[in-house]
Amino acid sequence: MPERSEGEAVAELAKRRGFFFGAAGAYGGVGGFYTYGPQGASLKRNVEDAWRERFAIEEGNLEIDGPTVMPEPVFEASGHLDGFDDMLVECPQCGESHRADHLIEDATGVEEAESLPIPEVEALIEEHDLACPNCGAPLAGEAVKEFNLMFGTTIGPGSSTPGYLRPETAQGIFVEFPRLKEYARNRLPFGVTQIGRAYRNEISPRKSLVRTREFTQAELEQFVDPERDEPDLSAVADVAVRLYPATEQTDDDGSIVDTTIGEAVADGVIGDAWVGYFLGVASEWYDSVGVDMDRFRFRQHLAGERAHYAADCWDAEAEVDGDWIEIAGFAYRGSYDLSKHAEHAADDFTVFRQYDEPKTVETAVVDPDMSVLGPEFGGAAADVADALQDLAERDPSAFEGSEVTVEAGDTEYAVPTDVANFRVEEQTESGEHVTPHVVEPSFGVDRTVYTLVAHAMRTDEVDGETRTYLDLSPTVAPTDVGVFPLVSNVEDLTERADELVADLRAAGFSVVHDDSGSIGRRYRRQDEVGTPFCVTVDRDGLEGDGPDSVTVRERDSAAQVRVPIDDLVSVLLDLRAGVRTFDDVLDAYDPVSPGAEA
Amino acid sequence: MPERSEGEAVAELAKRRGFFFGAAGAYGGVGGFYTYGPQGASLKRNVEDAWRERFAIEEGNLEIDGPTVMPEPVFEASGHLDGFDDMLVECPQCGESHRADHLIEDATGVEEAESLPIPEVEALIEEHDLACPNCGAPLAGEAVKEFNLMFGTTIGPGSSTPGYLRPETAQGIFVEFPRLKEYARNRLPFGVTQIGRAYRNEISPRKSLVRTREFTQAELEQFVDPERDEPDLSAVADVAVRLYPATEQTDDDGSIVDTTIGEAVADGVIGDAWVGYFLGVASEWYDSVGVDMDRFRFRQHLAGERAHYAADCWDAEAEVDGDWIEIAGFAYRGSYDLSKHAEHAADDFTVFRQYDEPKTVETAVVDPDMSVLGPEFGGAAADVADALQDLAERDPSAFEGSEVTVEAGDTEYAVPTDVANFRVEEQTESGEHVTPHVVEPSFGVDRTVYTLVAHAMRTDEVDGETRTYLDLSPTVAPTDVGVFPLVSNVEDLTERADELVADLRAAGFSVVHDDSGSIGRRYRRQDEVGTPFCVTVDRDGLEGDGPDSVTVRERDSAAQVRVPIDDLVSVLLDLRAGVRTFDDVLDAYDPVSPGAEA
Repeated sequence: MPERSEGEAVAELAKRRGFFFGAAGAYGGVGGFYTYGPQGASLKRNVEDAWRERFAIEEGNLEIDGPTVMPEPVFEASGHLDGFDDMLVECPQCGESHRADHLIEDATGVEEAESLPIPEVEALIEEHDLACPNCGAPLAGEAVKEFNLMFGTTIGPGSSTPGYLRPETAQGIFVEFPRLKEYARNRLPFGVTQIGRAYRNEISPRKSLVRTREFTQAELEQFVDPERDEPDLSAVADVAVRLYPATEQTDDDGSIVDTTIGEAVADGVIGDAWVGYFLGVASEWYDSVGVDMDRFRFRQHLAGERAHYAADCWDAEAEVDGDWIEIAGFAYRGSYDLSKHAEHAADDFTVFRQYDEPKTVETAVVDPDMSVLGPEFGGAAADVADALQDLAERDPSAFEGSEVTVEAGDTEYAVPTDVANFRVEEQTESGEHVTPHVVEPSFGVDRTVYTLVAHAMRTDEVDGETRTYLDLSPTVAPTDVGVFPLVSNVEDLTERADELVADLRAAGFSVVHDDSGSIGRRYRRQDEVGTPFCVTVDRDGLEGDGPDSVTVRERDSAAQVRVPIDDLVSVLLDLRAGVRTFDDVLDAYDPVSPGAEA
Repeated sequence: MPERSEGEAVAELAKRRGFFFGAAGAYGGVGGFYTYGPQGASLKRNVEDAWRERFAIEEGNLEIDGPTVMPEPVFEASGHLDGFDDMLVECPQCGESHRADHLIEDATGVEEAESLPIPEVEALIEEHDLACPNCGAPLAGEAVKEFNLMFGTTIGPGSSTPGYLRPETAQGIFVEFPRLKEYARNRLPFGVTQIGRAYRNEISPRKSLVRTREFTQAELEQFVDPERDEPDLSAVADVAVRLYPATEQTDDDGSIVDTTIGEAVADGVIGDAWVGYFLGVASEWYDSVGVDMDRFRFRQHLAGERAHYAADCWDAEAEVDGDWIEIAGFAYRGSYDLSKHAEHAADDFTVFRQYDEPKTVETAVVDPDMSVLGPEFGGAAADVADALQDLAERDPSAFEGSEVTVEAGDTEYAVPTDVANFRVEEQTESGEHVTPHVVEPSFGVDRTVYTLVAHAMRTDEVDGETRTYLDLSPTVAPTDVGVFPLVSNVEDLTERADELVADLRAAGFSVVHDDSGSIGRRYRRQDEVGTPFCVTVDRDGLEGDGPDSVTVRERDSAAQVRVPIDDLVSVLLDLRAGVRTFDDVLDAYDPVSPGAEA
């Protein structure tokens, strides 16, 4: 049997043990839609909670929760209606649709075919004699079309109100900016987060959770005053990061740069301090939830990859199965998003920025006597008046003499200064309206879940048998504790186990109760889903002289310790919170010898 | 100024303080889509977490998380493609669409117009001369049409794969039953929950969060063996409930019945013990999250309201603004859902139920000698063979004689018994396949949020001023603690406040920091969003002789107490968990006189 790839091993475990699997399999399924089973739903929720804790609560940001269906004008403004396309080529024989850029990348040395113009893509298909991967028919000569990736629908009866499933949660934040700034009491900087579903009608969904049609994003839109606001870079200056800057990617001898956030921003490798700040926060966060940081890097977008308005853009990438997967993006988006909505919508997308002290502003104005200009210049009079106003703003000193000369059309006109009625007006302004800039850390939740499972898969040997287990961080593990009566047909043990389950659940633990099969097999089941601790109720613990006790087993070491039942909740709380290590607990109580488990 | 209705007051507060508001208002909005602002998103999430705690974790159920877009065959099976309709009538003049049944209910004494056949609805429109509520044009003679309430879309390029936004989260559970039963190790009973978005393309969305087009459901599908499984009714037997049974609704003198779950099930008022169990659990849960139980009841569906397969069905209803709003439904759905999917899908929707001991089953079979029947009966031979098998199963004793007579077509045929080759086979069966029955508690999360805000609105007088506050339960309040430096221009105070914010956040509290405006105004702001406790850092607390201290203020009483900073986290943890009341804290530390806050 050929060895399974990492991706195959993840998919097999994920399906068998209830992490995730293709949805609606009983109906043959549809590509790109996944259902999270009980383990996966819990793991995913824990990832979302950990993200919320760090990026919303700890940062003091506002979190919102908006609809996934949004009306068309939103996407006219955002640019998604026109520009959110992939290149599609349809097989003339079998009718299967393919992403033209992927076909080219797979079959030729061309990279980033996505950014090529359509005629060039068609020419490459012809030049390389590309064939349909499904039926083998030649694709040369077939038209390559833009295919919009938004799922469309219709709101209400009739067809008058088209709507789309949002392609990113971000737009739900941008469109509500006029209200959100009020909740932030009109003071920059402030951040708004949203965790929720987003949709892309992929032509060819693939790679399990990596390229799906429905997915969950966790996005933060940080609104900043570009002239005044600076992040607290000192908080992350020492964070060590592995960077893959654009310059290294285009250099034949290019390589990964090991540095710190502080140095990378100081050296200009990271172009913007806010982006640097979030790369630092993200790096620590990924580490805390269990991404293997030896299989992690930040890759800068090449100039061609970046949207024209994005000043700097980095992806967080994790290596799984030999591929680098984009698991988050960090972009300095400037004022693009809010400006676009300000153009299209009927509301105010600026923030009023108070001056330190009110400013007196002098404005030069003219108020020409048209009863003089009219008879004098006829049809040109209005143009002459406009030219006078322009001149007043450009060069007030021109009005110092008795006559002023302006050009209108191709003719010069001389106007007596007193007819122009020139004067300088003074106005007091307390501040000005600024369109905030946006810094956007955008996380793919599903890809993070996929990475965590892949990076946590371990194989070792326990009691002479090969064991597979998930070395998941207690922060995100689907289940906190497994509780087992050693045997299922002794009432004392089962009752006591039921009580423990209730106690542990009341203390906030996610608990699994299992009384089926040998105790060794039950441990293996929990190992495979990454449960950090298992508690077994056995006769020895209830029948001895001392206080009633149970055994507690740690997942990675498979070591066991006997703990009095009265101490159990506090011991497990300490272990989960990291206040005590399992070695501390082994020291404090009686270790159990490994052979005793059978 | 006329007094505002409760609904208007909720809508105003919700928008102003960031609970919820119509989405995409900058683009004019689209009816039926709401965005939760920071307060509302937090409140909603807390409601979801509280539901999960009770209905998933405490019950030991499995929680899944499936896609919102599902392929068409799922809804062919579920019946939504054909039957999930509302009655629509379009105004011939202005083109506005209306729900025909609502027009009738609003304008006539008819109730439940939804269940009337279309011709009768058209007749009622004509009979009552109903007019378009928008433009006044008469609607008599206009066709009433069925309008399917699912949002449709297309998956992938081309139109070959229609998909729909799920109209309920339940279908995502039913379609995955073949896999879910494996995660439950094929043992009934087990429950599966899902919290997520669902969609109904309402003709006329209305009443704020009550009738929206996109909403969040929390559903539990309890799979039970109808012959063997019983709920633990004793756990809720004493729960007091207000019931409005079908018989009382149809009785002119009908009234609400105050009883207990135990009595209502024993008396048969609640028809099914599982339904009774969940009504009891739900009642306690609603109370715990802050629904005003004096404005709450369970109403039984009338026979006409109920789906034909639902044996018993109750709604949880909350009164808001004079209307009873359905906030949850509890239905005994029998084997309907799984049977339907078993018919349409290629998978096994049964559970194998082991017999207590293996059974020996006798099966009568025939194996007719066709070399005899063929020549004898010609073209009728195969029909004769079938008739022999039928007879063997129906009446084995018929084969006791030397000849047996069967009918095929309209002719009788006599067959020698030894040609029929009759025999009885014995088989040992260890169990049988059963289609589980489904009991479904289905909660509307948005409607619960709406009810909680409405039921929590309070007005009183504090310091001679009218105050509005939300008496939200600490379990669901959006923010746990507000932290204020008394003045914002004294570094000692602001630094200390910042430290406290960090400490409280690290301890898991949701914290708001506010240093703008008078302290009284800041208290009012937190009162309006239901923050249970506010902490103020003042000079007295930092400059006295004793340990540094802060004031802690309780929302409802507006009472204040001075607490040493070192005790603050533990005091607040105790208050939130309900381990100590605020009166306990007032006793333990120094109360602050009310006037001191200015």
